[in-house]
This record gives sequence, C-alpha cells and structure tokens, in this order.
Amino acid sequence: MKRVKLIVAYDGTEYCGWQVQPNGITVEGVLNQHLSELLREPIQVIGASRTDAGVHALGNVAVFNTSARMPAEKISYALNTRLPADIRIQDSREVPPDFHPRFCETRKTYEYLILNRKFPDPTKRLYSLFYYYPLDVEAMQRAADMLVGTHDFKSLCTAKPEVENTVRTIYSCEVLPEGEMIRIRIRGNGFLYNMVRIIVGTLIRIGSGYYPADHMEKILEAKDRQAAGETAPAHGLTLVKIEYPESEGSLQPLA
Amino acid sequence: MKRVKLIVAYDGTEYCGWQVQPNGITVEGVLNQHLSELLREPIQVIGASRTDAGVHALGNVAVFNTSARMPAEKISYALNTRLPADIRIQDSREVPPDFHPRFCETRKTYEYLILNRKFPDPTKRLYSLFYYYPLDVEAMQRAADMLVGTHDFKSLCTAKPEVENTVRTIYSCEVLPEGEMIRIRIRGNGFLYNMVRIIVGTLIRIGSGYYPADHMEKILEAKDRQAAGETAPAHGLTLVKIEYPESEGSLQPLA
Repeated sequence: MKRVKLIVAYDGTEYCGWQVQPNGITVEGVLNQHLSELLREPIQVIGASRTDAGVHALGNVAVFNTSARMPAEKISYALNTRLPADIRIQDSREVPPDFHPRFCETRKTYEYLILNRKFPDPTKRLYSLFYYYPLDVEAMQRAADMLVGTHDFKSLCTAKPEVENTVRTIYSCEVLPEGEMIRIRIRGNGFLYNMVRIIVGTLIRIGSGYYPADHMEKILEAKDRQAAGETAPAHGLTLVKIEYPESEGSLQPLA
Repeated sequence: MKRVKLIVAYDGTEYCGWQVQPNGITVEGVLNQHLSELLREPIQVIGASRTDAGVHALGNVAVFNTSARMPAEKISYALNTRLPADIRIQDSREVPPDFHPRFCETRKTYEYLILNRKFPDPTKRLYSLFYYYPLDVEAMQRAADMLVGTHDFKSLCTAKPEVENTVRTIYSCEVLPEGEMIRIRIRGNGFLYNMVRIIVGTLIRIGSGYYPADHMEKILEAKDRQAAGETAPAHGLTLVKIEYPESEGSLQPLA
C-alpha cells in the first residue's frame, strides 16, 4: 500500500466544483472514476481545496492510497491519457502514509483576472471577469496592502455555521496590471468561504471610486459581511498553487 | 443608405470558420442573422478574412450596407446584446460607400501561441498548441527573420488552384517567449492559405532541432510544400488585427 499525491489542473467551466455531489459532474468524481479504472481498485481521493463551481485550478492537490504496482511517478502520464481535456495531472509522487492535504500547515495562492476594457474579448471570457468601467489600479493596490497580515476576515467571507475562527494570515496581495488585464494575486495560510471573491468584489468597488482605498480598514473592523462589496463571479478565479512543508522543514512564512 | 464597418472578435472553437456554408454554424452566418433581426432588413456582411474552423479573431473586419436609422457607432453595443458570448463586436463605424474590406491594401497581424511545458494546462487548451519537447526560441527567431521581406511563399502554403501569385511581403515575424508560452507574431500584406500555420509548423521543427535555423532559406528556395513542416493546428491561431489606409493617407509599410 502506498499514498500518492497528485497536483491537479482543471478548467472549472463545465464542473459543479470539486466535491462529489449527487446532481452534477465534479472534478473529484471524475478523478475517482478514472483512477479506479486505471488502478483496478476503488479509489477515493482526498482534495486539498474544495473549489466552487466554475473556479479553475492550476495546482489543486489530491491524495489517495493504492495497492497498485504502478510507480507513483507514472500515474500522472497514465491518468492524463484517460481524463477529459479539461483536467490534467501536473505531477504524481509518493508521500508519507500520514500526509493529509488539508490538516497541515499550507500556503495557498489564488489569482483573479479582470479584463478592464471597452468590449469583452470572447477568447478571455471563460477565465476572467469583464469589467467596463475604468479601474484605479493604484487605489486597489493600496487597499490590498491593508489585507496583508493576520486579521479577522469576518467581513470578507460568507458565513458558515461550522467555521468559528475567521482569523487568517495573508502574506501578499498584489494588483498587477498587464495591458488590459488586471491580475490580483493573493497568498495566505488559508481562505474562508468566498473570501477571495469577496476581496475582489470589494477591490473593484474601490477601483471604481465607490469607496476610497483606506475604507478597506473600516470594512475589516466592521466584522460584518454587509460592509464589503459583492462576491465576484467564480469564473475569474484560479487556485494557482498549494505549498506544503518539506518533509523535515517548515514553510517560510513570508517566502 | 450607409456602409458600416465592424471589428469582430470571436472564439473560433465552436464555429465551422468564418464563411457561410451549408453544414455548420459560421461566424458570418451568425452575424448576418443577428444584424438582420436588429436592423429589420436582410443584411449580408462581407468579411475581410475567411478564417478557418477553430481559428480565433480579435480584429476581423466585416462590412455591410444598411438603410436603418440606427447610428453606426451604436450598432456595436446593440448587436453585442444579441450575439452569443463567443462573438463580440469591438467597434462599428460608417465608411465610404466604396470601401471593400478585401480589395484594398492592408496589413494583417496574426499570433500563434505554443504552450511549451511538461503537462498541458487545461485553462490554455482552447487558445494554444501544447508542445511537450523543449523548443529553442533563439533558433526559431533566426529562422523567422529569414521570412521578413518579399518572397515567394509557395513552400509555405497549401496550394489553391485559383491563386497563381504566391509572392507576399512579411514586415515582421517575432518569436516571443512569455514564461512557458511562446507567442509567434507575424505581420504582412497578405497571407496565403494555411501560410501562418505552416510557418509555425516549420518553426516548431526548427525549434526542436529537426532542421537548423538557416534551413528556412532552403525551404523558401524549394518552392515546394513538401520541403516545409506540418500545418500547425487551427486552435493556436488568432487573427489579431487588420490595418487599412486612412481615408486620405496610405499604410506605413514597416510601421
């Protein structure tokens, strides 16, 4: 028996999110099906991040146990020949038997793309939010800087009854203009439900001049979801990577 | 009666190319249908470039005559509310009655994207060619430089019986590495059938070390399609823009 860690990239457009559910095709469900067929035994993966419907990933992580003889490093290639084109394994390797993708210290990086121009670009529509009104990227960056550090993000998440602790640490939040595209890249030790999408919706309000940049501090202080902006749509969001501690080291807090 | 010029962007994934055909949905056909409904008269556009199935565009050009009262500048907005999400008008304006999008001197710019990495990225799969083997971008650029100027491109096109003159002028051909993506941008006064895709297929052979860079000159001299590389797949190709002379000026040949 060995434990295998997969790095999984997917286009979330056609999926009802990561997690298996009764009414709809999910990334986790497709992985379970094709892994079970490939390895000739029932496989159930454990995912690191249960991304919502429409959210994309370049580096989500899934872990499973198998008694199959196939070397862990070959599973990526073999699985990719079976998977639909909108899911592709980026890496497969053996990990210690006690490795759990959720219950350990990690750093997650998300990116959100905003296409800020006069007309939509059809070739960008599936992976970015089209936004017509001009955005003040410098004001957005000033507001984003106020998120860095350890804060109570209660104002910037959708409440879930089972989540009591809404304190998280953000290591960086960059607002990067790239021509007509604005890339918001955020790295933290964990994200609450809808947190990145609500941060983006709030940054868009600030970029549009609806709030001044330093209003972000007041939003954090309010500890009230009503104080923040809308939840930005799912299709602009991509889970870029999840960093784990090396087997004997620890994560660099700000690296 | 006025003549209106549209700049048309589309994701070519779901279309059987630009030109109306009996068995399949085309960009031209969808534009004719929605323009006719919007303007309440039968409209047939004339396209500048009849892109193949799967090819994308940010700036193809279509022209039509209409007696409708709607100002030309408003047609872009009104039409975009009706069109499917994979077609978006970028500009609409009145042009002189004798303006024809094909029978005048133009500069066309195409881009081809190659994703050169170990595993495919599902979020890039619709707009770039995935290529596993490492590519030598400098060799590709040296070969691309040999295409600049006025040459007989008979080796680098698919023959069409009605096209006798295979001499064209290329103003620039850049091979631009952008992380794991390679962007090939080519600007010329006209392109023969499949010419950009055959140039890209040949540059990939050179980048893989199958031919040396200066073999590109021998390929041009051969005037034989068999001398060149494969036709690269359609989905990596985008028609970026078409430049027309200003009403009283002329195009800058190398601008």
